[in-house]
Amino acid sequence: MRGNQIGKLFSVTSFGESHGPALGAIIDGIPGGLEFDLLTLENELKRRAPGQHLAHTSRKEDDKPEVLSGIFENKTLGTPICVMVKNTNQRSSDYDKDLKRPGHADQTTLSKYQHRDYRGGGRASGRETIARVIGGYFASLIIPDVKTKALISHLGPYVFNPSSINSPSPLHLKDPSFNQEIENFLVEAKKKGESWGGIIELKVSHVPKNLGEPCFDKLKADLAKGMMSIGATLGISFGGGFEAALFSGSKISSHPHYFGGREGGISNGDDLLM
Amino acid sequence: MRGNQIGKLFSVTSFGESHGPALGAIIDGIPGGLEFDLLTLENELKRRAPGQHLAHTSRKEDDKPEVLSGIFENKTLGTPICVMVKNTNQRSSDYDKDLKRPGHADQTTLSKYQHRDYRGGGRASGRETIARVIGGYFASLIIPDVKTKALISHLGPYVFNPSSINSPSPLHLKDPSFNQEIENFLVEAKKKGESWGGIIELKVSHVPKNLGEPCFDKLKADLAKGMMSIGATLGISFGGGFEAALFSGSKISSHPHYFGGREGGISNGDDLLM
Amino acid sequence: MRGNQIGKLFSVTSFGESHGPALGAIIDGIPGGLEFDLLTLENELKRRAPGQHLAHTSRKEDDKPEVLSGIFENKTLGTPICVMVKNTNQRSSDYDKDLKRPGHADQTTLSKYQHRDYRGGGRASGRETIARVIGGYFASLIIPDVKTKALISHLGPYVFNPSSINSPSPLHLKDPSFNQEIENFLVEAKKKGESWGGIIELKVSHVPKNLGEPCFDKLKADLAKGMMSIGATLGISFGGGFEAALFSGSKISSHPHYFGGREGGISNGDDLLM
Amino acid sequence: MRGNQIGKLFSVTSFGESHGPALGAIIDGIPGGLEFDLLTLENELKRRAPGQHLAHTSRKEDDKPEVLSGIFENKTLGTPICVMVKNTNQRSSDYDKDLKRPGHADQTTLSKYQHRDYRGGGRASGRETIARVIGGYFASLIIPDVKTKALISHLGPYVFNPSSINSPSPLHLKDPSFNQEIENFLVEAKKKGESWGGIIELKVSHVPKNLGEPCFDKLKADLAKGMMSIGATLGISFGGGFEAALFSGSKISSHPHYFGGREGGISNGDDLLM
Repeated sequence: MRGNQIGKLFSVTSFGESHGPALGAIIDGIPGGLEFDLLTLENELKRRAPGQHLAHTSRKEDDKPEVLSGIFENKTLGTPICVMVKNTNQRSSDYDKDLKRPGHADQTTLSKYQHRDYRGGGRASGRETIARVIGGYFASLIIPDVKTKALISHLGPYVFNPSSINSPSPLHLKDPSFNQEIENFLVEAKKKGESWGGIIELKVSHVPKNLGEPCFDKLKADLAKGMMSIGATLGISFGGGFEAALFSGSKISSHPHYFGGREGGISNGDDLLM
Repeated sequence: MRGNQIGKLFSVTSFGESHGPALGAIIDGIPGGLEFDLLTLENELKRRAPGQHLAHTSRKEDDKPEVLSGIFENKTLGTPICVMVKNTNQRSSDYDKDLKRPGHADQTTLSKYQHRDYRGGGRASGRETIARVIGGYFASLIIPDVKTKALISHLGPYVFNPSSINSPSPLHLKDPSFNQEIENFLVEAKKKGESWGGIIELKVSHVPKNLGEPCFDKLKADLAKGMMSIGATLGISFGGGFEAALFSGSKISSHPHYFGGREGGISNGDDLLM
Repeated sequence: MRGNQIGKLFSVTSFGESHGPALGAIIDGIPGGLEFDLLTLENELKRRAPGQHLAHTSRKEDDKPEVLSGIFENKTLGTPICVMVKNTNQRSSDYDKDLKRPGHADQTTLSKYQHRDYRGGGRASGRETIARVIGGYFASLIIPDVKTKALISHLGPYVFNPSSINSPSPLHLKDPSFNQEIENFLVEAKKKGESWGGIIELKVSHVPKNLGEPCFDKLKADLAKGMMSIGATLGISFGGGFEAALFSGSKISSHPHYFGGREGGISNGDDLLM
Repeated sequence: MRGNQIGKLFSVTSFGESHGPALGAIIDGIPGGLEFDLLTLENELKRRAPGQHLAHTSRKEDDKPEVLSGIFENKTLGTPICVMVKNTNQRSSDYDKDLKRPGHADQTTLSKYQHRDYRGGGRASGRETIARVIGGYFASLIIPDVKTKALISHLGPYVFNPSSINSPSPLHLKDPSFNQEIENFLVEAKKKGESWGGIIELKVSHVPKNLGEPCFDKLKADLAKGMMSIGATLGISFGGGFEAALFSGSKISSHPHYFGGREGGISNGDDLLM
């Protein structure tokens, strides 16, 4: 297998199967002397973990990060940082050895690698995103000012618009007044073994200027690769996105936010919209 | 600058500015002994070139490829293949030295590299796609059975659906019965200095099984990166795409084409839909 | 820090400091379905570990490998294999916090990364070679027929030539009749806090044909990089090596073993001599 | 074929066969706004070209560089710089189509790539070093203070020591008083179709501190790879080199120049000796 590493100057090398001994990542390209805070990393991993709402998938684990290298006296050494999270919940009895779920990696993994851990999704499991959360935490040490905010704008039959209510949504809905209704909707779906698609709106603020390169490594191209490498994603758009197809060039040019913070593949300091 | 190379086993290294002496690419990772046909490469480059329809941008060049290395007696040597296309149309008088066009790379290029060829878009010009066409031609020598078909489904206010008419559209519209109307629409827009966005539907057939990797280098992730690295693209979706947000998991699972030919990041032999 | 990964199709990503929680490696590019044997890996790591002879450095650890990913039911999954070895012997009292040993990384590490684990050599420690032994074990699963034999030909004032004695040397001397004398010599040196340089002759047999590439990635170039990336190495030569400077081209050409198994950067099936 | 690129932040991608239309390189990772001087590049290429002394191989070409991209108004644009040198001397009649010269790439190239330009060494020709000279010129724009001096210390039966004569040797001998004798020796050898090996001593001064990484990408490892990727090299050593095998650790430690300007894989500002 290849393709378990992303990034050039700053890189994340991901390892681990959903039901093996552990998952984790090696983070490289971190300068020395940056302050490391284990508690913050733990909290980031908790935010990722399922099992916190009734509507989530049932698997519940502690996801405790253990730092194996790269940190000394709570500071980065500049050396590769290996963090592992042990799998504590390997209930192999839950899984059907011969199951090939449509839309999942079961069939293609077996076709490509001849051998498969039938106890779960293996490398293609959503649990692999632990590596990305670890990577994200360390990235935040390098660019601490960058802020990201992601909210659900569509969920199955629902469309959410920003409401006047300022309290944040525990379900990360764009309009938090739907919180209870959506929780009920999802719990009902879960009872029936059903799930629903959705659309997430993401805004990144305080993006440094000059990120991205004019050719293949345009900022939008690298972000698209990262986003589309998450199992469940089916599409991504920037700024005006698919809507922009309806508009004339002059209309788009007069609304800078349609470019979503990048021009010619390079960040211009404006907010990124995805 | 970095990011002028894409691909690992098979790679395309792109060079050239829109108004420099030449553009082109080094293609590497090609086996030895494959038949090379200059005429086919020339035709692929002609298909890319603007200036063939009244509705196109005006720049018209011959785009004649010259092979500098990697071919001997009309066969690949297995060595890196360098192909260049000379720029013959460098009308520097057309350009405003201090122009900073919104949504273009003018400002960001200057911010990042301090020096800029003000005669055109430089690296961020659409003319850089010459490198990609050259890369595509040589890719087709390795996977000759793969067929791609791309048609315009949306163009500004128009939506095209497949008609019963089988004649291909010279404008690559999904419904060719609109050919004349759209040509008029675009010529009118061009007169006013206007342009329009659109959506392209792409189908790839005879995709070999087992392409793509389960983690960062999922097939959909690498394709998204490639597509989004083209200057004008604002979004990409696969299979069910953004529409799939409306549907339940069970509905999606029962329609395999919603996955667009990939499961778990790996091609399954079905058609890819983008 | 960068440069903790080596290899393209098959790669070893090394992590860990000499006195941190653990060292290890992620091995990637391994096909699925290969037989894994923990005992063999343990034995390879034992061969690397110091403390087995009186003449060795004193640090003695168990170096027990723990497989975190990539193996299921004693077979490779094709996924990245993470193996860690915990550091059990972190006697920080042994080390002088402000010591800057000449020829060691103490000064340069601090200059480059601003922060340093003063308890030992950190990343520059010989202990990092654990990652390479792990990598070597998994490489042997892919090319099981390749055999390497390394013997000491020079050690300080001694020069060893092959003797007629066939019993292998516990000290890996080219001439095992020196075993007791050299052990005494080294123990004496150790008592005085002294160490000695040496030259190792390496022969690799059953090398597959066609390894290496004609340009920068010549087989000899990649091997030189690997060998010279070990802390203690000061030089490497192939086939005839520095002696070949004395000879005419015709003499060298008539002795194929002077090329050491490669021509034009590519293995030809003959034994590699280093 | 792969391995036609070297370098990460600064990279050289080499292309071209000895008897194809052209050779050259794409240089990437150059900042924008650096002064470019074509004449200096031409002079560097002239220094590389054979045919300047009676003792050289006979092939004589003009090796005129043509810049295809990356330079505008005599300054770097920050974009990839493609430079080509046309082959003007393609005397195919000189070559034997079926010749397999021992120690050359003829046999291995055919085995690996199935197709070969029998008119010369192809990619494995010494002519490929044109790409490296081009790369070296552009590297010098980034680190203009670094000075390299290379002199021949051994040539076949001769050993040269520094003489008191300060006039530089046209043959780059360490002791220029041998100039005429060695020219005669080589011309005689050439008449007989003979060639001789040699050893070159290289000193690099004003090396910036902090180059190199503690693990696989140690400075000595990357330099070894670069040097050993040149066709004719059989060995490389640093600082004390193979001689250091004779010495005790305490003796080496007391002579800092034995480390040749690097400690722990990282440059320390001292001269590099190879």
